[in-house]
Amino acid sequence: MVHGRVSRLSVHDVRFPTSLGGHGSDAMHTDPDYSAAYVVLETDAEDGLKGYGITFTLGRGTEVVVCAVNALAPHVLNKDLGEIVGDFRGFYRQLTSDGQLRWIGPEKGVVHLATAAVLNAVWDLWAKQEGKPLWKLLVDMDPRTLVSCIDFRYITDVLTEEEACEILRQSQVGKKEREEQMLAHGYPAYTTSCAWLGYPDATLKQLCSEALKDGWTRFKVKVGADLQDDIRRCRLVRNMIGPEKTLMMDANQRWDVPEAVEWMTKLAEFKPLWIEEPTSPDDILGHAAISKCHNRVIFKQLLQAKALKFLQIDSCRLGSVNENLSVLLMAKKFEIPVCPHAGGVGLCELVQHLIIFDFISVSASLQDRMCEYVDHLHEHFKYPVLIREAAYMPPKDAGYSTEMKEDSVKRHRYPDGEVWKKLLSAQGN
Amino acid sequence: MVHGRVSRLSVHDVRFPTSLGGHGSDAMHTDPDYSAAYVVLETDAEDGLKGYGITFTLGRGTEVVVCAVNALAPHVLNKDLGEIVGDFRGFYRQLTSDGQLRWIGPEKGVVHLATAAVLNAVWDLWAKQEGKPLWKLLVDMDPRTLVSCIDFRYITDVLTEEEACEILRQSQVGKKEREEQMLAHGYPAYTTSCAWLGYPDATLKQLCSEALKDGWTRFKVKVGADLQDDIRRCRLVRNMIGPEKTLMMDANQRWDVPEAVEWMTKLAEFKPLWIEEPTSPDDILGHAAISKCHNRVIFKQLLQAKALKFLQIDSCRLGSVNENLSVLLMAKKFEIPVCPHAGGVGLCELVQHLIIFDFISVSASLQDRMCEYVDHLHEHFKYPVLIREAAYMPPKDAGYSTEMKEDSVKRHRYPDGEVWKKLLSAQGN
Repeated sequence: MVHGRVSRLSVHDVRFPTSLGGHGSDAMHTDPDYSAAYVVLETDAEDGLKGYGITFTLGRGTEVVVCAVNALAPHVLNKDLGEIVGDFRGFYRQLTSDGQLRWIGPEKGVVHLATAAVLNAVWDLWAKQEGKPLWKLLVDMDPRTLVSCIDFRYITDVLTEEEACEILRQSQVGKKEREEQMLAHGYPAYTTSCAWLGYPDATLKQLCSEALKDGWTRFKVKVGADLQDDIRRCRLVRNMIGPEKTLMMDANQRWDVPEAVEWMTKLAEFKPLWIEEPTSPDDILGHAAISKCHNRVIFKQLLQAKALKFLQIDSCRLGSVNENLSVLLMAKKFEIPVCPHAGGVGLCELVQHLIIFDFISVSASLQDRMCEYVDHLHEHFKYPVLIREAAYMPPKDAGYSTEMKEDSVKRHRYPDGEVWKKLLSAQGN
Repeated sequence: MVHGRVSRLSVHDVRFPTSLGGHGSDAMHTDPDYSAAYVVLETDAEDGLKGYGITFTLGRGTEVVVCAVNALAPHVLNKDLGEIVGDFRGFYRQLTSDGQLRWIGPEKGVVHLATAAVLNAVWDLWAKQEGKPLWKLLVDMDPRTLVSCIDFRYITDVLTEEEACEILRQSQVGKKEREEQMLAHGYPAYTTSCAWLGYPDATLKQLCSEALKDGWTRFKVKVGADLQDDIRRCRLVRNMIGPEKTLMMDANQRWDVPEAVEWMTKLAEFKPLWIEEPTSPDDILGHAAISKCHNRVIFKQLLQAKALKFLQIDSCRLGSVNENLSVLLMAKKFEIPVCPHAGGVGLCELVQHLIIFDFISVSASLQDRMCEYVDHLHEHFKYPVLIREAAYMPPKDAGYSTEMKEDSVKRHRYPDGEVWKKLLSAQGN
């Protein structure tokens, strides 16, 4: 049983200087320092368990998200954990509909990222108290309780609470077998580690050849900054992986709509499975293929408008497990395959729980589905992902895999951690 | 000629305790304290002129916007003002596309509000250096320079730079006469001051009868929290103003789509001209009438989808004059009347410049057009709006009317201004 009153919320600005190696670089984000606003929840319960929550950021601006987490703190402090999860929809709405704070969102940008960090910590704590990995907590939850975590505001025109329950009930068939299948073989993954935009060709070749040796069969390439450069890099990757393996492309919002059409016509010869974020994430009508979006209302319309062929959830941009549940259920209703966004800091650790749950309890299918994987920064997590033969193996430790190593947090705190003190003094700051 | 290098950027968290009187209350924002992140730009020029910029907030969370302004400051400090406005599109994109910061937006929520505050200050400074009110600066600017302030990214599928120039060129005819018309009669306004959701009926009646005496003919009522209550209040207002005058309704995002349809069927008997923000501001496909949105990409789609009959710009939610220009031009192309959102802190002061410019240089029409007016907090501004016979009279002072009185800022700084010190100590904080 969940118990304890939240006695402390602390939040840390943790940054990794990934820009030094060009890791994570794409057409719009040329020098990202992969970072996180990292929330720690403590309770007065005797078990001493803590909840850890992160949201992913790119360096500058993490301090703004930290500030927003502090603005949300009064909604969490001194609350009873049992009461929070007992009316999780109400709690979600309290965070997202604060009569003053919602003006600076609502449910988007900085405040929504902060909401995700806080709620991710609550889910981690809940799962830890139940002694289960998060995916298993969700899988074992009865449909009625599951949907009680979802705020259906603004989506009832495509999905009602009753429909959501019905979807979950129908997916009970074969659940046990699917759980066993996951435990034995894991969830299929694809890799984005090989072809960041900032990598020289030699690095690209080396990483690609290593990935092939490790059994990877699906690869994503960043595109969008320079067409001739893209053609060269895509040809290089396609030649290395051969005609049968899967290639995806990601333009990271670089293009206008006509530009996207023109550019992709030129890249079509390399047979990409999808083009990701061809244009503004706000442009529902302009979308063509796949998109990571900021809330359930945007996803709802992309589904209604039949504007995407694959759907990318994100564990840290949407409002935590709660909002991701609503998107997974809508995707099921529209029969659109979900291929989660991951990478960054901890996105792989978190999103694996959601997609494994999705397979066992919602979609019941692996057709056209795979979860992004990037081989970065896992060493800073206490319960890092386990990849086996290009598949995510279900986590076994209790919680949401959100907890970072204490020493990593300490060393990478911005600007006062050891790593940054050195870097900043070298830059003469 | 513009000149000087930006030598200082300071930003203040200014809050007015409007929640104490129920002013500004609606179905989603029950206790707003009208507030602003208030930016002051100084240069090394000898003229000693300063640029003032605000973005409007509702109290809590203003500190988050202030934090975001500070995150943007490095893009502004030590820049030459002439270089900024000489490549204003480039500067706009630098602010909105910082490779690390854009992750926590992009172009929405906290970072976009902060961008607006900073750019509003730049426009104020520019207009002051030119010795003109902002609307006149815009009216006198040649079409080519005007469009060079606009970032067309993500909107070229409906509006190219050439088309924008052509619209402006065609509207040169009759400009002089329209400017004289504005100076003589002002821009028509409607009032939202009478019917906030938190007002008791007696207050509502009194304010309505005063407004009628002052010559107001168009009234907006907040709705959406309780249907029976709405029916009573709408009946009361309609009875007081009679069948000929104009009534608008605003639900402030309270409803789901089916709920909006049901509710408005019940309120139809009071003959509203429009229903404003019936549902989520992200729900393009669910929209029916009028919406204030967070960026040009959302407006573009609302126009493409023919999802609105009136368009509300906002001087502080969009990326300042730059982004508002693009929306005014798109509205002209789709022949949708623009009826700006105002009220809050300073929104009336700012948006009057944009709508007067729109009439003189873009739309050339007053058909179905009016600008919101709320009679609050003008006393804190150095150049407050002047309303005559329910019309905005064009400002004559140089600048963007953004400058607040020094003493008002000092007294209302949160939490250390005199007003808040008293209030917080009375609350035992």
